[in-house]
Formats: sequence, structure tokens, C-alpha cells
Amino acid sequence: MSADLTKQVLRGDIRALAALMTLIENHEPAATAVLKSLFPHTGHAHVIGVTGAAGVGKSSLIDGMTAEYRKRKKSVGILAVDPSSLFSSGALLGDRIRLRRHFADPGVYIRSFATRGATGGVSAALRNAIHALDAAGKDVVIAETIGVGQDEVEIDALVHTVLLVLVPDMGDEIQAMKAGVTEIADLLVVNKADLPGADLTVQQLRAAFSTVEVVTTAASNGDGIEQLVDAIEKHRVESIANGEYAHTQFRLCREELLDLLRQRVMRRLAAKMNDPALDEIVRRIAERRLDPYTQLDVIAEKLGF
Amino acid sequence: MSADLTKQVLRGDIRALAALMTLIENHEPAATAVLKSLFPHTGHAHVIGVTGAAGVGKSSLIDGMTAEYRKRKKSVGILAVDPSSLFSSGALLGDRIRLRRHFADPGVYIRSFATRGATGGVSAALRNAIHALDAAGKDVVIAETIGVGQDEVEIDALVHTVLLVLVPDMGDEIQAMKAGVTEIADLLVVNKADLPGADLTVQQLRAAFSTVEVVTTAASNGDGIEQLVDAIEKHRVESIANGEYAHTQFRLCREELLDLLRQRVMRRLAAKMNDPALDEIVRRIAERRLDPYTQLDVIAEKLGF
Repeated sequence: MSADLTKQVLRGDIRALAALMTLIENHEPAATAVLKSLFPHTGHAHVIGVTGAAGVGKSSLIDGMTAEYRKRKKSVGILAVDPSSLFSSGALLGDRIRLRRHFADPGVYIRSFATRGATGGVSAALRNAIHALDAAGKDVVIAETIGVGQDEVEIDALVHTVLLVLVPDMGDEIQAMKAGVTEIADLLVVNKADLPGADLTVQQLRAAFSTVEVVTTAASNGDGIEQLVDAIEKHRVESIANGEYAHTQFRLCREELLDLLRQRVMRRLAAKMNDPALDEIVRRIAERRLDPYTQLDVIAEKLGF
Repeated sequence: MSADLTKQVLRGDIRALAALMTLIENHEPAATAVLKSLFPHTGHAHVIGVTGAAGVGKSSLIDGMTAEYRKRKKSVGILAVDPSSLFSSGALLGDRIRLRRHFADPGVYIRSFATRGATGGVSAALRNAIHALDAAGKDVVIAETIGVGQDEVEIDALVHTVLLVLVPDMGDEIQAMKAGVTEIADLLVVNKADLPGADLTVQQLRAAFSTVEVVTTAASNGDGIEQLVDAIEKHRVESIANGEYAHTQFRLCREELLDLLRQRVMRRLAAKMNDPALDEIVRRIAERRLDPYTQLDVIAEKLGF
């Protein structure tokens, strides 16, 4: 079954992709088997992360970018992380409905992921979903996540190009976000640029983040989308030329390997939970006959890891 | 220095305790050295967790409990987890000021911990602080944390007796919290019981959680505090008699050992970050010459863990 699924995904079959995405979202072991055989076929897609606070218009922007990439004959995969049950926001739903116009286009694949469970789990699922779309031959994969902060998915560990979407009149917020932004954003997008205050916001951003390009869009009427995709492509081409792109590929592989090693360790630890040797060690600690601080290496070795 | 600090803490010296608490809060390696030598002297204190939403009056309740325990000639250590910079709530501060009346009492030690950084870090710091107060000879250690939910400190992994503090008129919330409560709470405290709706809330709680004792208090005027401490002591004595207390001691040691093993693994992983062997492996993965999914065990072994 997993061999069939692999073949179908490589062919870009939409039903097979959907089946694989469900396995990935539910962290089913069957997903790993498929991902293993897909692995040699990955590494070709340009992966773009679109992040920013709720309400800045990320979905409309992605809708516009998708239309533009399709004009340029590129196939597109879209992955959106939903803050699931926490907010069942109408605005969010409205934006998603907009994306539906691409549902009939076989060159576009769209999938939402719920953020239930731990953040680490969402990151792993999103990374695997990117691999699946990459192997399925999508030229561009766009991942939408919410926010820039400590609790969210670390988008820069998953994608080649990070777009941080803002809206006019963010004054104080620009200062507040100063710390993390320059490290992760490759492009700053001021969306809803038809609103008052857009020019001032752009000025402030250029002053605060001189090394990051700022692009203005009004996704609702399509203004600036072509220029945005130009800017993304320019960033990609320049990155390839100056070696930054290869470095990013390396960094993403490194992050994934470290995650896989972390998961392996946690699985091994979980497997020890019912080991009678563990209970015996705990009993001696509880009786203060064994000191877990000084004897940790010995204990770890005894438990076999 | 660490030997001196150990001796002073064992003597119950307040300055030494404060110095150790700071080392613990900052996760300094020096804290571990002291905790190692304190370890044989731990396991005597009765550790009580007081949890509940912001504003239910946890600090006032702890203030009252402390006065009652002092009447009974028990020394008391109080550890409060502060949601730090996130909220600089006046109410919280007001409550804490109330606790100040115990500052002059050498039989009471009070310390707040900021919740900056990861949840896991706070849990570890709180656990170590409990050990310190335990070794310093405190008969009772009271740990105050906020809320019952997935993001908070898992208080039942740290204490012998969990008090969940509620206020009247919680109707819907009682239903909502149904799942987690009975697993962690040993006593339900309806504080501010002088407010309207207290009787109904108690009835609802008794109906919903028939196996957990419900106690009413009005901490602001001291009503019910003596009965609350009686109930806590009854729970402790019965637990010791029926073996539940020993089981809890075992469970707390187990949780700590698993945490220590997890931390050890993460440290080992962090130490590999600059290993040239890791970079070479990542390079081969990036070039799709090595498959991290099938080769994970081999990779882990190569990296030495």
C-alpha cells in the first residue's frame, strides 16, 4: 500500500496526496514509510513561509501570489496552519473561501493543518507536508503560519524564504518586534497598503530594518502582487548565486535531523516507562539510597541509552 | 563555596537559602552541586500545591494557611510562580503584600519565581526550590501556581497534596474543567464563600466530583482556614496510612528522574551541535545521498548517543 501511495504521490495524484497529508497530520507511522521513499525526490521546490498576525490578510496575499505563480506556469502547494478550535474566526474562514477559486486548478494543492497538540508536532507535520508537495513536483510551496513569537511554529526552520506580513499603522509594534524579525524575515510585506498610514509604516520599517526589503501590496485588489512575486524570485535567484540558498538547504536539513534525533530519544525514553529496571531505580531514589544527580550517567546507561 | 552553602542551607540560614534560590532560578550549574549534597536530607517536608485561576485569592489563602500552620508550630516555605512580565497585576501585588506580615517570622520563608522561559524550566526550578526548603527543614512547603491547563506547570508532578481553589458562581467552568480536575486535585477549596452563590457552587462541585473533598473558606476574614488545614492534615494522615503517600513520593521521584534524563539527552544533543561529524552527515542528507529516516539509528550511533 505504501509503495502504491508513493508512486501516486510522485505522479502528483491529488487523492493520494490528501491521504498522505492525513497520515502526516495524525503522525501515523505509515506516513514515515511513504516519506522514506519520497525522500530522494525532494529538494526541488522553492518553499516560502508567509507569517504575520491574524487579520493582516495572509490568505488573500497567498491567493494573489498563487494566481501570479500560475500565470508564470509554476505549480503551487499551499499549507496553512490553523489555530484550530481556539478561534473559529469568520475572517479566517472568509479568507480561506477566497482560496477556493484555485480548487479546480490541478496545478494547485491546498491543505490546512490543525494546531492541536504540541507545537513541535505541528512543525514536524508541516515539514513532512512540505516534503510531500516537493516530491509531488510542486515548483513552489507556500506555508502560512500565524505570528512571530516563542509559542508559534519556527517558520524559518522550515522554509527558504520568509515573508513577514504587516499592515499600516503599526508604530509601536515595529519597535516591539525589532528583536526577532531581522533574523527570520527575508521580505517585509506591508499589506492593505491602500489604508492610511502605509507610507509612514514603510518608512519606519526601512529605517528600523535597513537590510530587509519592504514591499507594499493591497491583496484585496491585487495591487503589488506581481512586484511581490518579482521580489521573491529576485531573492531566490540572488540567494542561489551567492550561496545563501545552499546554506539554507543545509540549515533546514540540520534542523530536521536534530528534530528526528530528539524524537528518537523521546521515543526511547517513553519505551522505558514500563521497564522494571526504572521502577527499581526510582525506589532506591525515593529511599534516598541512590542520588539521581551524581548517578545520572550510570542510571542512563543501566536503562540502555 | 558550595559546601559552605550546603551547610548553611541545612541550618536554615535565610541568606544562604536566598542565594541558592537565585542559582536555581537562573539554572546555574552551581545549584546542582548544592542540590546533590542536600539530596540525602530531603523527603521530609509535606509539599502542598495551591492552584487555580488568577483572582480566586490563592495568596490570601496561603497567607491564612501559613498563620494556621505557625500556630501548630510547623515551619513553612512558600514558593509562588509569578507570570512575570506578562501581567504586572495590582491584585497579585496586593495579595503578595499581605504575605509580608510573615517576613519577620524566621519560621517562614517566601520566594517568588518568574515564569520567563520554557514551562519545563519553571517546573525544574520549582522542584529544586522545594528540595532546598525541604532540606532546610521546613515542615510544610506550599507552592502556588496559576491555572489548570496544558501550558502551566504540572503541579501534581511536584507536590503531595493539590488544592484547587475556586470561587462561587463558576457554573459553566465546572463542567469545562471536569476532565483534568479529579486526576490532580486532592481538595477543592471554594474561596470567597461569603459571596452569593457559594452554596450552589459547593453542591455542584460535590455532584460533579463526588470523590474529592470540598472545603469552603473566606480567606479575607479567615473563615474556614482552620478547617482547611484540618482537611489537608487529614488527607496527609490518611494517605500515609493507606500507602497513597508513599506512592506519591515514588511518583514524584519518577517524574524527576525522567526530567533529569530528558535534560541530559538534550544537553548531549546540544553538545553535538559543533561536532564536524554532524555537519558531514547533514551535508550528505542535503545532497540526498543519505536518508535520515531509514538511517537514524546509524546516525545516532555515529554521533555517540
